[in-house]
Order: sequence, then C-alpha cells, then structure tokens
Amino acid sequence: MYAEIIASGTELLMGETQDTNSSYLGSRLPALGLEVRQITLVGDHLERYAEVLERSWRRNPFTFTTGGLGPTVDDVTREAIAQVMGEQVQVDEEQRQVLLRLFRSRGQQDMPARNIKQAWLIPSARAIPNGVGTAPGWWAEKEGRVIVALPGPPRELSLMWDGHVVPQIKERVKGSVVLTRTIKTIGLGEALVDEMATEVLGVANPYVGTYAKPDGIYLRVIARGGTEAEARRLLDPVDHKLRAIFGKNVWGVDDESVEETVGAMLRGRGLTLATMESCTGGMLASTITDVPGSSGYFRGGVISYTNELKIASGVPAHLIEAHGAVSEQVASAMAQAARARLGADLGVGVTGVAGPEALEGKPPGTVYIGIADARGAKATAYRFPANNRTLVKRRAVTSALIALRASLLEG
Amino acid sequence: MYAEIIASGTELLMGETQDTNSSYLGSRLPALGLEVRQITLVGDHLERYAEVLERSWRRNPFTFTTGGLGPTVDDVTREAIAQVMGEQVQVDEEQRQVLLRLFRSRGQQDMPARNIKQAWLIPSARAIPNGVGTAPGWWAEKEGRVIVALPGPPRELSLMWDGHVVPQIKERVKGSVVLTRTIKTIGLGEALVDEMATEVLGVANPYVGTYAKPDGIYLRVIARGGTEAEARRLLDPVDHKLRAIFGKNVWGVDDESVEETVGAMLRGRGLTLATMESCTGGMLASTITDVPGSSGYFRGGVISYTNELKIASGVPAHLIEAHGAVSEQVASAMAQAARARLGADLGVGVTGVAGPEALEGKPPGTVYIGIADARGAKATAYRFPANNRTLVKRRAVTSALIALRASLLEG
Repeated sequence: MYAEIIASGTELLMGETQDTNSSYLGSRLPALGLEVRQITLVGDHLERYAEVLERSWRRNPFTFTTGGLGPTVDDVTREAIAQVMGEQVQVDEEQRQVLLRLFRSRGQQDMPARNIKQAWLIPSARAIPNGVGTAPGWWAEKEGRVIVALPGPPRELSLMWDGHVVPQIKERVKGSVVLTRTIKTIGLGEALVDEMATEVLGVANPYVGTYAKPDGIYLRVIARGGTEAEARRLLDPVDHKLRAIFGKNVWGVDDESVEETVGAMLRGRGLTLATMESCTGGMLASTITDVPGSSGYFRGGVISYTNELKIASGVPAHLIEAHGAVSEQVASAMAQAARARLGADLGVGVTGVAGPEALEGKPPGTVYIGIADARGAKATAYRFPANNRTLVKRRAVTSALIALRASLLEG
Repeated sequence: MYAEIIASGTELLMGETQDTNSSYLGSRLPALGLEVRQITLVGDHLERYAEVLERSWRRNPFTFTTGGLGPTVDDVTREAIAQVMGEQVQVDEEQRQVLLRLFRSRGQQDMPARNIKQAWLIPSARAIPNGVGTAPGWWAEKEGRVIVALPGPPRELSLMWDGHVVPQIKERVKGSVVLTRTIKTIGLGEALVDEMATEVLGVANPYVGTYAKPDGIYLRVIARGGTEAEARRLLDPVDHKLRAIFGKNVWGVDDESVEETVGAMLRGRGLTLATMESCTGGMLASTITDVPGSSGYFRGGVISYTNELKIASGVPAHLIEAHGAVSEQVASAMAQAARARLGADLGVGVTGVAGPEALEGKPPGTVYIGIADARGAKATAYRFPANNRTLVKRRAVTSALIALRASLLEG
C-alpha cells in the first residue's frame, strides 16, 4: 500500500532547515506496511501546496504532511486540505476550549487572536491531540483516502506519531508487514564486516545491508511478510546468526545508543562514574547525562580546558611537563583523578586536539582516552579525521563510551 | 526564475540516508537568481522518476537532479532525461575514453562492462566533468529549458557545482537576485512576534516569514531585485525596521550562533569564562567549546551532578540546605564559585530539573541560571516545556548563553 509525504516550509526549499521529519516517517512507514512512493518539499504557498497535496491524495491511500499547522498566515496546511477535499474550515468549539486551557495553563489569560486557526476543523477531519504544543494534528479522510497532517517541530511530531497515528494505521493497514533490525558493531572495518556476513548477504528477503557510521558498522536486516509473525520468522534467524558471528563486537541494537548501553551496565552493577575531559569540552558528560536516570550513576565531571585546572583537579604536574597535556599518561591520570576526586568507581579521562589548530605539535584529531577503575588505569590513542571540530569531539565521545563498555565487559 | 530539485534514491524514501544535496543546492540557488519551487525525492524507479522530471521540466527553466548516475540498473537518471526529452541514449566516444583513462589511472586495465552507461549522452546533453568519481554530470537543454544532472556523492556534487555549473548559470540567468536576512529573537512567543511585525508582514517583496526554533523566533526577510543593489535597497529598510521593533530581543543575525556571538564579545574584551552546571550535564561547556578558538577565553567547568561536588567546588552548603540545590540562590553561588575557583572574569551556573522525574518537588523543565562577574551575581528562573530531557538541556544552554550575552551588553 502506497503513501506519500509532503513537508512544507519555505525554509526547507532555501536549505535553511534540514527536513528530518520526512526521513523519520520514511524509516517508520515500511514496518506499518506502507511503501513511500515520493517525498515532496513545498513552500508556504497555498496554491502550490494544494496542487501537490491533491495529486498525492488522489493516488495514495495515505498522505502524510508535516509542518504548516502554526498560527500564522504562512501556515497553509489546513487550508490546503480543505481545498483538496472541497470543504470549509470552521472553528471547532471543543478544540477552541483545548487551546484556551493550554494558554491558561501557561499563565496567559488571553489567547492571541490568530491562534484560533489552530482550532479549525473540516467535516472530514478529526483533531489529533498535541501533547506539547498548541497545534493539533488532523486525521482527514474522504472517499476512503487519508491525509494525516502532523506538526513541524520534530518532538511534537514524534509524540503524536507514536501515541495516536501508529495505532490507527495498524488498525487500517493489514497484510504486508516489514520488520527491521539494526545490529551495531564496533572494531571491524566495513569490508571485513561484509566478508564475515557473507552467508546472509545477497538474499532478497530478509535483506541485509551494511552501513558505515561514526560509531561503527551497522548491519540492517529488513524482512517482509504477510503478517507480523511471518516477517518475524524470517527476521529472527538472521538476527541470531549475526549476533553469533559478531559476538562482542556488537554493542547495541536498533535505536540503542552506547550511552544507554553503558548506563544500563553501570546501573545493573551498582557502579558510579566520573569524567575529566579537555578536548571534548563537556560533550562526554553531556552525552552520559542525556540518559534519563543517569543521576543514579553519574557523579559529575571536570572540564579541564587549562593545565592549571588539570593540576588543581589532581593530575600530577610532572606528567604534563614530561609528556605534554595531550598524551596517554595524562589521559590515564585524568581518569584516575576523576575517579579519586569525585569518589566514583570508574573514571574516564579524555585529552586531545579538537582543531582546527595543532597543539603541542600534535595534529587535530589526535585523542587519548583513559579508563580508570579499582584495578588501575590505562589509555588508548586515537586519530580521527580532523576536518571538523564538532565531529572530532563527537567521535572522541563515542570512542570513550565504547572503551568504557569494553572495560566493563572485562571487569 | 523558477527551479526545481529532484533527488533520487530509494534509501532516501526509507529514511536511511538523509538528503543533504537538496538543501546544499537550495541554499545556493536564490543568490543565482533562481527560486526553488519544489524539491522532490523519488525512488530508483524509471517510470515514477520520469513523471516527476517531465512535470518539472515542462514548467521550470531549470531542473536540478541529484543521484542516479552510477553504473547499476538502479541508476535511472540518464534514461529518465532521455525519455522526457524524447531522445535516445548512445555511447559517446570521448566520454568512453575519459572513463577508460580513469580506470587505467586506478590501476584497472579493464573497465567493468556495466560502467559503459556512464559514457552515455543524448543529442541535447553535454557531459559535465567529474573531478573525483566515474560519473560525469549532464547539462541537458531543449526548448530553452535546462536539466542539470549531478551525482549523488556530496563531494562529487559540490566540486561539479562550483567548478562547472555555477559559471554556466551565471551566464544564463541575469536580472534577478535574491538576498535574505534572518533576524533571531528570543523571549517572545511566535504569535506575539507576528503581531509586533505586522507592518512588514503580508508583503510579497521583501517577504517576511516567522519561524519557531529552539533558540527563539526567527524572522526571515527575502528580497528580490534586478540587481544586487536593487535587492539590497528593498532588504535594508525592513532589516532596520525589524531590529528597531525587536531591539534587545534580537540576539543574532543569519548563520550566527549565540555561542559565536558570546565568544566574539569575550574575545573582543579580553575576558575569560568558567562554568558550573548540573542539569545541563556538560552541554553548556560543550556548546561553548564548539567554537574554534574558544580555548582563548574558556577556562573550564565543573559538572556538579551531586551536592557533595557542588559543595567541594565552592557552593556554600547552607544555601543548598536552605533553598535546595535547584534554586536561584544556588545558581548564583555556582556562578560565583566557577568564577572564583577557575580564576575567570565571568562565571555561569546552571541548576535545574532535566526530567523525566521531579526533583526537590520541582517539576521537570524548572531551570535557574546564574551569571557572576566582578559586580556580583544574579540568577533568573526559567520554565521550559518538559517533554524531553535533551530538549530541556538544549533550551537551558541557549538561555544561559543569551543571559550571558545580556550581561555582557550591560557591563
């Protein structure tokens, strides 16, 4: 069964905002039995929008739109759907009350006059509640074909998607289910992964693809079946086979992040963690604390952007003098100092050169990562592609978390 | 003058690869006098591709395609252009020699048979040299309308774009230049911004649009003129008017990030900065250190995820006891402690509840930001939408940087 996605926003056409909503939806629709035929990005322009929407609505059982549900004159999605379905918009009293309550809960007694657009409906549309923002979505259905209008802010969209849209699609679409599984490996090159996975590659269903990512090589399994059970019967054996082949090189599955994997290990063992970082500038701690519940195991960290602060935080001055601040010795000492000063079971130290300038004669991309636990400390040297400061930081953070995971697996 | 962009690749529709080529082109076309009317993503499917291409070619002087120029059967761009223009593809001897030389220079005596597709041309197309890969682009022109076919790999595309396509477009398109200006505001809701900007909204040229972003509401001015000077004469008065209307609520312009704005102010005044953060978990320091050269003014930071670490870092224990760790008083004390302990001119303290759980009876989204300088310290309370931990952190970081900017403006 076919679907199309239409994303609206002049800023998308001008390259100012990257449209991530369409790929969010595109990656989720196949598992619901919907094949994406086309994605179209249009400006905030009623006539052009309606033209694209009409074409999609006429030929697809499902059309998904994102954006254009705000309160301004630029927000034309509601008008476009009304036009395509040949109906008139009108203020829905229930939706008006929802909006008024929302504004009151935010301490505003009056709703700005223009927000009334967000209470509009047409006879063929029902409102989809927005758990976060002011814009409800629309589930509009006429002549057996559906237009689902979703808001542009990704967080509002994903909440609405999971909570309201997916259950309704599942009820509607039966018969062809696509299941996927992503196995995330680290420590092996793409060509080697390809070779090791030979026996499951080159098959149409389940299809296995390999993808090089900043945090390793991913293997993606896509299985299609008439029912979920049938798709699962195809998927599971390949999933098990890949896990057996790659063993300890597998660090996560599907949406799992390495910070979640490490967090779950720390929580499971009742261990605490502290960090001392220089070149990553706080990104390591920030990534660790992106995980809900991380305050249960993360004690804190120091961002030692100067040598004085490294020394004041417990790194021996003579090590910096002898080896330089960017060295294995200092990375180990930072890990040990973080562990000791912050009273944690494990310490991580990261020192390196984020760029664009070299430091202590070491080129951008040079990074040392130390891990300390009750058994002592050790450090590893890394050399990342140095073309982008934030990317060097990001790779150093991922590598530090993967090193921490390896250390926990040994311990 | 209008243009459309068509990106091909089934992986784009499945959300496996993000289409960054279209936004690359979209951000560059307006300055060349071309307005992007639509961007379409299609699968590797000749019939669907040709349908979209034909519609675009019939109505636009320029169509740009990306992808589908590889050697496999999935690469259908050349076939689609031939079909739309009603011509036959044939092997071009010159292009065949170019390909053979390329394979030989890579140490391969034989060219794989399927690569011969990459030497195809049609009578209405010229080849555009590819400085990196095997796929030449096409400049196809018939009935006064142009299709420019560019390869999918971003590096091949950008080299071809700058070296060959831009000069040809400049020769062709005269007389219409588009200039844009983005004014970034903070502290006002979208509806209010819309209301305040009423007098410049609803005009076609220069056109003003409003966009809600995590770091405030953006106003985007788009001016078109026959020459750059003419476009500027339209743009500048609106630009000045908006800055006058929004005054101190404006924190940046165009691509400027608030961390860059603050960094430039610190560098210009020879001031140094230190941070102490709890709920943002290092994201504030990480954002500050995303700016190249930040080691010139950023001394470092402490991530005090526990009360012990706050106290050990210089926050008076009695303040935490009296007011709780999540309080204005502690935010101020954290800013002062960061400044004093790390020997910086300015200190920022951030304490709050990232969620999903409440803390000390305060709901997720509650954040206090303290700024300390030689004059003393003060803190401000914030309440962010609490639906997502990383988003609360991101908003707290942006607000802290904006508060720091405001403090620098006063000082």
